Order: sequence, then C-alpha cells, then structure tokens
Amino acid sequence: SELAGADPVVAARAAFVAEADRLKTITRATTLCDGSRFENSAEHSWHLALYALTLAEHAPAGVAPFRVIRMLLLHDLVEIDAGDAPIYAQTAASQAAMADLEEAAAARLFGLLPADQGADLNALWHEFEEAETPDARFAKALDRFQPPMQNIASDGVSWRSNNVTYQMVDARVGAAVRRSLPDLWAHVAPRIAALLD
Amino acid sequence: SELAGADPVVAARAAFVAEADRLKTITRATTLCDGSRFENSAEHSWHLALYALTLAEHAPAGVAPFRVIRMLLLHDLVEIDAGDAPIYAQTAASQAAMADLEEAAAARLFGLLPADQGADLNALWHEFEEAETPDARFAKALDRFQPPMQNIASDGVSWRSNNVTYQMVDARVGAAVRRSLPDLWAHVAPRIAALLD
Ligand SMILES: [Ca+2]
Repeated sequence: SELAGADPVVAARAAFVAEADRLKTITRATTLCDGSRFENSAEHSWHLALYALTLAEHAPAGVAPFRVIRMLLLHDLVEIDAGDAPIYAQTAASQAAMADLEEAAAARLFGLLPADQGADLNALWHEFEEAETPDARFAKALDRFQPPMQNIASDGVSWRSNNVTYQMVDARVGAAVRRSLPDLWAHVAPRIAALLD
Repeated sequence: SELAGADPVVAARAAFVAEADRLKTITRATTLCDGSRFENSAEHSWHLALYALTLAEHAPAGVAPFRVIRMLLLHDLVEIDAGDAPIYAQTAASQAAMADLEEAAAARLFGLLPADQGADLNALWHEFEEAETPDARFAKALDRFQPPMQNIASDGVSWRSNNVTYQMVDARVGAAVRRSLPDLWAHVAPRIAALLD
C-alpha cells in the first residue's frame, strides 16, 4: 500500500523488517530449556545474540563482538523461504539443495532493502555461511553451542526424540565449539556425556 | 548441578543465558504481523535489534548502534520475573509497582553473572529505562515504533481488541517516535490514521 509522500528508503527498510517478522513462525528442532515447546528461529536468534554479548570474553583474539552480533541477528533470515534444516537430519545432497534455496532466499530478502544496504547484509550472511573468518567461526560456534545448552536444561528432550548419541554431538557440534570456545566446551562436554552415555 | 573442574566464570555465564531462555515464555499484547498469535518478548527483542541494525541511518547524531543493540537485547529480561505491562493498561500506581518488581528482577538476573559484568549490564538496563541518553531514547523509540508496524501489517488486530484510538497511539507512542525517528513516524502516521480513524 503506497501512501503519498512516503520516503522510498524508509518504505524499503520498513518492508524488510515487516517481512523479517515471519522468522517467528519457523520452528526449530530444539526445545525451550523447560521442554514445553520447540523454539522458533527468531527467539533463537535473539538468544544467540545474547550469548555473544555474554560470552564475548571467551572469543578468540581478533573477534569483533558487534560484527558477530550483527551476523547472528541475520543468520537465519533465509529460513523464511528455505525452512530450518535440523543438523542431525542432513546429508550431502540435502545440504546442496538447501544451499541453493538459501541463496535465493538471501537475494529476495536482502533485495527488499536499498541496494547498498542489502548488498552489505547479504555479504555478512555469506561470511557467516562460509565460516572462514574469526567472526563467522565464533558466530557458528555459538549457533552450535546453544542447542546442547537447551538439551542439558531440558534433560535432553529433543536429543532423545531423535536418538542422538554423544558421538553424534561430538562430531557435529564438538569440533566447531572446541575450536572457537574451548572453555565453554569444557563446561558442557561432561554434562552432555552424563545425559547421553 | 556442579561438575568437577567447572570454571566458575563460565558456569555463571552459562547459568545466565539458560535463565534468559524464560523470556521466550513471556507473552506480549502485540501479535505477529500475520495476526496468528501474540508475540513473545524474546522474539520481540530480536526484532527490535534487527530494527536497530536496519534503521541505524535514521538515528539522531551521536547514537552508537552497538550500544543500542546491546540495550535492546537486554531491555525486556526483567519481564522474566515481572511480566509484560501492556502500554495501554498502565496507570501511575501500576507503573510504580512495576518499577519495584523490575528493579528486583534486574538485581536477581544480572546477579547471576560475574560481579563486574552483571553491574555493567544492569547499568545498561537502567540507562534504557531512564531514557535520558541519546542511545536509550533511540532504543525506546524503536520499542514504541515496532508495535504500530505489527498492527499495520495485521490490520490492527491487537489495537481493535483493546479499543485503541489514533489519539491514544499518538499520545503514548507518537511523542517518543517523533523525537528520535521523525522519518519513520512520517512513514507510519498516515497508515495508523487510515487504520484507526
Ligand atoms: Ca541457527
């Protein structure tokens, strides 16, 4: 609905934040800490940004907390079009198909913004996905670290329903977390073992 | 559950982010843009941080976007103990009682963290509440601006169910938004009028 006198830059940004609202309807495979329901990707993104704010002191040298938080606020927006792919259900073929869907989603969603800003945020999302810079690796490590924390709190409700073993968590989560957050892995590893062994 | 060898600083930060998870269970008076359900305060906090990231160019001179985003990530945590107080239901007496509850909530929640960090985050939350610095005013303006955006998208579902008028929105929301975000108020004011007049 175009109204007279609307500033097109403001209108574009307003359309982007309104469209982003749909991330609140994307359900993840991880529950709340109380096990009462599955979490959605919007509240998950908030939680990860709060993790980054709280745990910044444990980041490797050279990590810029503000860039990490910006990445985490954006990192799941592509799920609005592509959906959430639970980590324990992925195969090489499903990952390749998902990467194409996510690429198209990023083009559509960041394309709602003024061109320069959309390109900047799309580049930040790609940096996260590629997980090659220290900021992106730290952001990815937090994204891997939070679901075990939810499972520890809920006595492993989402792990148990997916028959997840300690070896699976160690292989798919442990590697990324150990590399960027060794102190935090040391905190959770014995708790994961106690739950799943 | 204390495990041998746990680093107490890591354990404190892990306890804080796990407790913060409860913000996902606090329901607000505003719905999603699609009107399908009320939003919760965790996903709302994510959305506001995304607003700040997207709309930083419209902030008054001197506003530091990272401080604003940190404030917004934290601003509703006290609701875990104190609940959400819908803006159109507040009186002077209910506001004073709520302020006491929120003060105690902040002491408890930020008190889970290592002392220095807890004091820093508690001070940031107080800065937001007092709304006197440019960063806090911008953060508060975004917090006022987002519910009208949700109502415009949902054809005013939560306003209609509370018999909200244009004059009420203008008085309780317009003043704060106009001061910090005049371009954005110019964008939404005619849309609000079209919906509520
Ligand atoms: Ca994620």
